Amino acid sequence: MKKVLLLLAEGFEFYEASVFVDVIGWNRLEGDHSTQLYTCGFTKEVGSTFGQKLVVDQLIEELDPDDFDALAIPGGFQEFGYFESALRPEISGLIKRFHNSKKMIASICTGAIAVAQSGVLTGKRATTYNLNPLRQQSLVNLGAILCMEPIVIDDNIITSWSPSTALDVAFALLERLTNKENVLNVKRLMGFKICQPNTLV
Amino acid sequence: MKKVLLLLAEGFEFYEASVFVDVIGWNRLEGDHSTQLYTCGFTKEVGSTFGQKLVVDQLIEELDPDDFDALAIPGGFQEFGYFESALRPEISGLIKRFHNSKKMIASICTGAIAVAQSGVLTGKRATTYNLNPLRQQSLVNLGAILCMEPIVIDDNIITSWSPSTALDVAFALLERLTNKENVLNVKRLMGFKICQPNTLV
Repeated sequence: MKKVLLLLAEGFEFYEASVFVDVIGWNRLEGDHSTQLYTCGFTKEVGSTFGQKLVVDQLIEELDPDDFDALAIPGGFQEFGYFESALRPEISGLIKRFHNSKKMIASICTGAIAVAQSGVLTGKRATTYNLNPLRQQSLVNLGAILCMEPIVIDDNIITSWSPSTALDVAFALLERLTNKENVLNVKRLMGFKICQPNTLV
Repeated sequence: MKKVLLLLAEGFEFYEASVFVDVIGWNRLEGDHSTQLYTCGFTKEVGSTFGQKLVVDQLIEELDPDDFDALAIPGGFQEFGYFESALRPEISGLIKRFHNSKKMIASICTGAIAVAQSGVLTGKRATTYNLNPLRQQSLVNLGAILCMEPIVIDDNIITSWSPSTALDVAFALLERLTNKENVLNVKRLMGFKICQPNTLV
């Protein structure tokens, strides 16, 4: 079983977290059954952007990164305390542990800022929310090479623009954990028409 | 402020709930600011399909439907107790109250079965998860006219096929609560390219 750790910083964006829950979950139930998702946060209940509260499986301080095969990082809004939480040294440390073990790190939107803060994006191609120059500048200031592409995969790290890219990031992670054929089957079951491999319409 | 009640039956599908959280939330923060979402369930903590636990704002037994302007109903998996919960008479009663007040009811995937169970789809055009004939048969048995279309809007009731239709259902609800121009702006901010009005690419 390949275990995905979903990192929920305070103020995480609910939709961007949900794509990992569903894609990994559909695969467990209806795909090749080889993946399982676990959530973590600083507190047992974590508040999302837009005020929902989720009960996490594990506290960050208690978990062992060696138990997991990939890290998934949704973005979030500054207005809901996302950066205050996501840029904490404990999260940077967690990201570095996954990176040093060459495990997949899949982030969406402003989640890239948390990845960059850890130092693992230095000299790597990456992107972040594309409609706010402040976010892009943060990424550059933290040493990444900014790419104006919706989804950027450099080595083991996925970064992306916005909620619109979220599903494709989750499917890209599933493809790295399983294979292309399996991803096409899961997409089909979730109702996405397959025109070309890996293209949602 | 237009208030949307998100109905979380046990075993609700996380992704299908998230589209309402995000679309209504983005509109509150970055759109015309006129909408707010509240969650409800039978218990303070509701388990989702794939095992996440969400803390709801209100218990179903305690809420007053007159406080809300629209009802949003994600689907869910039988394996996680969705139908046992979603077909309970308290939920049928809630749906009827919204319908009798001619308020919008927006459902996704198997959420349509809960809507049909309440009786409000009798003689109306509707759809549900399209890759399982059992779900479609349930809808017909409960009096609906089955339409093989991804999203069906009959009067005040929206039904749809699968996770792939979820975002469009949430945007359709937002359009009914605000207007088309506002929806296009929210879509743009969330990163969805606008080729034609109401077409996600």
